[in-house]
Amino acid sequence: MFNKILIANRGEIALRVLRACKELGIKTVAVHSTADADAMHVRLADESVCIGPPPARDSYLNIPQLVAACEITGAEAVHPGYGFLSENARFAEILEAHGVTFIGPSSEHIHIMGDKIEAKRTAARLGIPVVPGSEGGVANEHEALRIAKDIGFPVLIKAAAGGGGRGMKVARSEADLAEAFATARAEARAAFGDDSVYIEKYLGRPRHIEVQVMGDGKGKAIHLGERDCSLQRRHQKVWEEANSPALNAAEREKIGGIVARACANLGYAGAGTVEFLYEDGEFYFIEMNTRLQVEHPVTEAITGIDLVNEQIRVASGAGLSVEQDDIEFNGHAIECRINAENPATFAPSPGRITYFHPPGGLGVRVDSGVYQGYSIPPYYDSLIGKLIVHGRNRVECMMRLRRCLDEFVVDGIQTTIPLFRRLIDNQDIANGQYDIHWLERFLAENPIA
Amino acid sequence: MFNKILIANRGEIALRVLRACKELGIKTVAVHSTADADAMHVRLADESVCIGPPPARDSYLNIPQLVAACEITGAEAVHPGYGFLSENARFAEILEAHGVTFIGPSSEHIHIMGDKIEAKRTAARLGIPVVPGSEGGVANEHEALRIAKDIGFPVLIKAAAGGGGRGMKVARSEADLAEAFATARAEARAAFGDDSVYIEKYLGRPRHIEVQVMGDGKGKAIHLGERDCSLQRRHQKVWEEANSPALNAAEREKIGGIVARACANLGYAGAGTVEFLYEDGEFYFIEMNTRLQVEHPVTEAITGIDLVNEQIRVASGAGLSVEQDDIEFNGHAIECRINAENPATFAPSPGRITYFHPPGGLGVRVDSGVYQGYSIPPYYDSLIGKLIVHGRNRVECMMRLRRCLDEFVVDGIQTTIPLFRRLIDNQDIANGQYDIHWLERFLAENPIA
Repeated sequence: MFNKILIANRGEIALRVLRACKELGIKTVAVHSTADADAMHVRLADESVCIGPPPARDSYLNIPQLVAACEITGAEAVHPGYGFLSENARFAEILEAHGVTFIGPSSEHIHIMGDKIEAKRTAARLGIPVVPGSEGGVANEHEALRIAKDIGFPVLIKAAAGGGGRGMKVARSEADLAEAFATARAEARAAFGDDSVYIEKYLGRPRHIEVQVMGDGKGKAIHLGERDCSLQRRHQKVWEEANSPALNAAEREKIGGIVARACANLGYAGAGTVEFLYEDGEFYFIEMNTRLQVEHPVTEAITGIDLVNEQIRVASGAGLSVEQDDIEFNGHAIECRINAENPATFAPSPGRITYFHPPGGLGVRVDSGVYQGYSIPPYYDSLIGKLIVHGRNRVECMMRLRRCLDEFVVDGIQTTIPLFRRLIDNQDIANGQYDIHWLERFLAENPIA
Repeated sequence: MFNKILIANRGEIALRVLRACKELGIKTVAVHSTADADAMHVRLADESVCIGPPPARDSYLNIPQLVAACEITGAEAVHPGYGFLSENARFAEILEAHGVTFIGPSSEHIHIMGDKIEAKRTAARLGIPVVPGSEGGVANEHEALRIAKDIGFPVLIKAAAGGGGRGMKVARSEADLAEAFATARAEARAAFGDDSVYIEKYLGRPRHIEVQVMGDGKGKAIHLGERDCSLQRRHQKVWEEANSPALNAAEREKIGGIVARACANLGYAGAGTVEFLYEDGEFYFIEMNTRLQVEHPVTEAITGIDLVNEQIRVASGAGLSVEQDDIEFNGHAIECRINAENPATFAPSPGRITYFHPPGGLGVRVDSGVYQGYSIPPYYDSLIGKLIVHGRNRVECMMRLRRCLDEFVVDGIQTTIPLFRRLIDNQDIANGQYDIHWLERFLAENPIA
């Protein structure tokens, strides 16, 4: 096992990793920008190193400074957390070149999964279901029709050079296809000077469901079930739960088994998340995140497995502490991301926390790097904490969450807590009936006065 | 289900009950003394009633005031917490006479278990193992020898009128008996003017192990395993764990089954704890507590069952939410009682909390009624919070506890946190090898400088 780990991150995730290290008896090195000298992870670490000023590119993203911090402190390994350098293959390579272990998968796997086309190709090769569609550009209307019939309507015709919804048309049936194809091409030509289009199955109201996987890097991998992260605003997850209200045990085992076997075949090491869109009982690969996710605690709540502990074990060569058969899913967990934001406009709300009192009691976990008197700097992500609630079932979990939201006090700044107080009273949320567009529809229809 | 419950207590347990009520959608009424107007349970309750000044006899123990508070607020039931009126049969009777449900067992069961001799007789009748000994006084040395041989050496000869260790002698073998018997009688005569003595099996270094039971009041009862509360100072529990490091699954099932069957036969309603001394594989009944215990969260941690929720369900007539077969014991949990006390002398340390930051993260629960800026009044029990840590096994639990003790910050007053930091490093504690006298021996041998 490692003697000393450097945590190349800040905020709640730096504290999360620090806690796992302490529980393994490993010394910790915190790094921080000049703006983060008073941060909790710095106070609780065994050692700390200032690595530069904000913004992040001059400190948390500064690889030479991080390597120097490892050399100064004698850290044997680096945990990157999420964000920042956590999916930077070059960082992993440079650390390895300096004899420091990167706590994560191989740089090759980071690299593959960082390239969308390569990732989709690899996923398909490993037996992970991907969105069906044309392999590349579609030459004409006849070919388009053949492919559309093959994958089934509705289909999406997308500009190869596209983005932002331009050059994108839905054909709901054979009758729509010719017009949709022509319009998409015309728009693509006008917008991007390139009328190449391709076809994919169209998903109208999919859910975002992701499978947590842990590989030992030696050909063994297990899955820890899924998380439902469909409640999003501008592609930012807001509320995550495990298990998904949409899956039954057989579906869970099936998709989990597919992902675990794929990662075993890949020889994947450490924590990873395979993200899917899910509609009408089918899974469609979006991407794989080769790191710990913000929402990992809901998986920890229902499995009892400490994912950061497992990441460190794997990186050290100690292997996983559990086998697939040891994994049981107990009850239900929900995470709410507490952001320092105006709950109506979602504008950042940095500043001094004049009062901070988190909820407690049975089934409640708060992961937060802030404290009373702490000033949130304006330079970083607005996530200041995560409230994770566990119950024997989803109803109990929701009642507990409501109670916790009532108890949670954060004064001096604005937070997203009022948003969750509104969500908890909504019938669709109570029923678990929502898709990836639900929250934006809800916010449009129910603006905060 | 009830619409409104009055919580006849203060501090962390009032908050604990309030949380369970909120999670059941039940309105809450807090009561408080004039010294507790700023208490957390008052702030979080739907309504509150001031019931008088300190000390407790003029407020929390004032039955007419509590009945009046029920009438004013329309509370349909009262949860007594622990301590105060929680084991007062008359309180239960008076409430029932006023048409208010007492959330606890029948007043008859409270009464029986409140009388030590009656409790022991009832336990024995119900098949619960009790300390073997003479039924009453022992007339002479010959009868003493016959009884001692019957129950086995060592035996304890105790003054019937005794207390505080006077008139108490241990006979380790037949050779010791005559002298011990004569000395005990002589001391009893000198100390109490009564030389009646009785004989009991002597337990040298027993553990305190207690079984949690829940009855539905209709002839069904389940057990939720045991807690080991051997770490005590002056008969006050300091550290509790579940499961006991001393029991295996077969012993757990056996004693749990005995207790559950006994409570089923009694028609017991709600939460109860049957306390035992345990030595050399044998259990010896001490007493039954007919209420929730301070240390109930360790049981909740390993079973996932909310005991207060079950108490309320049973009192409302809704019955238990679980059957015996639903109860599984997952992992290991330890509770540390955080008292506002000097950790060397254990003298109370009331005053203003200038900084309060509880630990968080996976497997951590903090139940506390205090907050930053709160002034602990000098009139009540010194318990200000409980740190409950859960892990997959005892080793993981201990590592997590160590990490949490490092994180826990309470400034402005003294607390028992430093005591736990010392205990966590002790080899006997690590091995789970301790008895009810261990902590006092440790404190005598390792005084805080």
